[in-house]
Amino acid sequence: MSSKDIITLLHGAGGSYMHNLIKQIFMTLDDNFGDIGLQMLDDGAVINNVVFTTDSFIVRPIFFKGGDIGRLSVSGTVNDIAMMGGDPVALSLGVVIEEGFPIHDLEKIVNSIKNTALEAGVHIVTGDTKVMEKGSLDKIIINTSGIGFRSKQLDHDIETLRKTREPKEWLVPLNLRPGDKIIVSGTIGDHAIAILSSREGIGFEANVSSDVAPLNKLINGILEIGGVADAKDPTRGGLADLLNDWSEKSKLGIYIREEDIPVKDEVRAASEFMGMDILELGNEGKAVIAVSPEYVKDVLNELWSIPQGKDASVIGEVRKDIEGVILETSIGGKRYVGRPLGDPVPRIC
Amino acid sequence: MSSKDIITLLHGAGGSYMHNLIKQIFMTLDDNFGDIGLQMLDDGAVINNVVFTTDSFIVRPIFFKGGDIGRLSVSGTVNDIAMMGGDPVALSLGVVIEEGFPIHDLEKIVNSIKNTALEAGVHIVTGDTKVMEKGSLDKIIINTSGIGFRSKQLDHDIETLRKTREPKEWLVPLNLRPGDKIIVSGTIGDHAIAILSSREGIGFEANVSSDVAPLNKLINGILEIGGVADAKDPTRGGLADLLNDWSEKSKLGIYIREEDIPVKDEVRAASEFMGMDILELGNEGKAVIAVSPEYVKDVLNELWSIPQGKDASVIGEVRKDIEGVILETSIGGKRYVGRPLGDPVPRIC
Repeated sequence: MSSKDIITLLHGAGGSYMHNLIKQIFMTLDDNFGDIGLQMLDDGAVINNVVFTTDSFIVRPIFFKGGDIGRLSVSGTVNDIAMMGGDPVALSLGVVIEEGFPIHDLEKIVNSIKNTALEAGVHIVTGDTKVMEKGSLDKIIINTSGIGFRSKQLDHDIETLRKTREPKEWLVPLNLRPGDKIIVSGTIGDHAIAILSSREGIGFEANVSSDVAPLNKLINGILEIGGVADAKDPTRGGLADLLNDWSEKSKLGIYIREEDIPVKDEVRAASEFMGMDILELGNEGKAVIAVSPEYVKDVLNELWSIPQGKDASVIGEVRKDIEGVILETSIGGKRYVGRPLGDPVPRIC
Repeated sequence: MSSKDIITLLHGAGGSYMHNLIKQIFMTLDDNFGDIGLQMLDDGAVINNVVFTTDSFIVRPIFFKGGDIGRLSVSGTVNDIAMMGGDPVALSLGVVIEEGFPIHDLEKIVNSIKNTALEAGVHIVTGDTKVMEKGSLDKIIINTSGIGFRSKQLDHDIETLRKTREPKEWLVPLNLRPGDKIIVSGTIGDHAIAILSSREGIGFEANVSSDVAPLNKLINGILEIGGVADAKDPTRGGLADLLNDWSEKSKLGIYIREEDIPVKDEVRAASEFMGMDILELGNEGKAVIAVSPEYVKDVLNELWSIPQGKDASVIGEVRKDIEGVILETSIGGKRYVGRPLGDPVPRIC
């Protein structure tokens, strides 16, 4: 069997390897069903106005600086629903545990799930528990799926978009138009570096906490302002994967400026030390938002007014005169930002 | 750490160990939300008339007599929705794969998912792919979650129940009344024995295929007849776990007759050989149905008219003069059927 015939770590790392696997194998399941279905490859689906999404979490270590697999499991699924313009309401919890796993650790994880659900205002309504023999699973895997309903603020937002375009009914890349500004809600790369730094034997320690957090209230806050064409969370594959996704789906170019991208000094130092591109690092509590220019100032003011958005910044704009994603570097050069092969840090979520 | 402080295989095996773990740890997440929420510990939840459920599948081997992990993943979640009285519409697919897994096997599984979804009339609308390092996961785990909407036939069924009781709006154990007949839709134990027989080195081979199948059309067929108080699929822990669940939740006794329970000769022989109680064996294509007596004949005729229901049989009834679950044995004795500690065959789903 050649290496082309087997699954590799890159196939799960959120970059071009994973996208190709999905297109080659999983898209055979697409039957073009739903208002937003499998064919859209978005954060989730929309079926009869129900937003529906799923994520499995295999993060290591399971307890890390700033969070744990429980907080991650709730935040990841809440955020996928919020990024479509939905209000997350109910989550399912599918837990697969290795025989011998300490019950005390399970209690800590479930308590973290409880607190994060409370913070987000969502409910755990159904679940499933499985156990695998010792040695057949590394500790614990958690799947959360979730449903949500149309956010009230979304209707207002779509209405404001009508002044400059014919928007779709949900937050999707097809809403992007030339001139839209690209905002990130805060510093980039914190989660990936916190995960790396929490791993034993990795050879460096950074004083960085994961940003993992539910963002549904942040998203509703900016939808209430209006002019939001799309929002997406830069998880596996980071900003580089997300912006390439937007560019491909909208068939528009995206131009960003390195010096405007908020990055913590420790994150910059750590990624230089590890030889990683900050743009490819995964985040779990950040949103990238495309905003119609006349609403940018008000959206930024709204973001700056809450703790999770205090470092929000305009990093670039959507353009029709370029193709793909172009980065203007701090020293004034320009380079294409390609889709990463996969996130440089494996198992960050 | 004592063995009381760690997770064991029994904690995932669908019996009293699992129920205790759920009550001790996961029920701390219950906030009494939803029309049917976590507090009901049913096959799924109902939120604003959306039926929502989840299951993770860890079955070994992944290809077995009569099915595979793909067919199982679709059928399990479709059936959980159908057993609530919902029409399953859309499924999510969360796949976690071990590095080195053959892509050819993944294609076979996805093809099986596609065919089973087509058979059930459901759509795969969203998904997630993760990969774990070689040695940290035994091959592949699949989570399917699903949403469905109220079945049209359910309204008719609930209406027929009003002649003899005040039913709830969905198929739940609280609808059970003394005198209701208990029907199983076919032979019991096929899936567990097929799985065991498909395992290498287990020392016996039985000519039995798994019954794994989507049952949503079967359930809608009998709801159209009416008089159906509740339906549930006897998966992990089998009939024994299911009937104890009904008895506990309805606070009524259940009396069943061994000689009326349909069992294939090969399954009976294999379970005697392995020293296992047939009542505790898991099934993946069977329904247990509580029916108001005046509808029993018509429900049976409906079941007998379709291939999946051809061996359907009345096995007992709901009673108020007894407590718990009592089995009348073939030789005329009586014994209590307790909740199993866990399914005697690990990892059947």
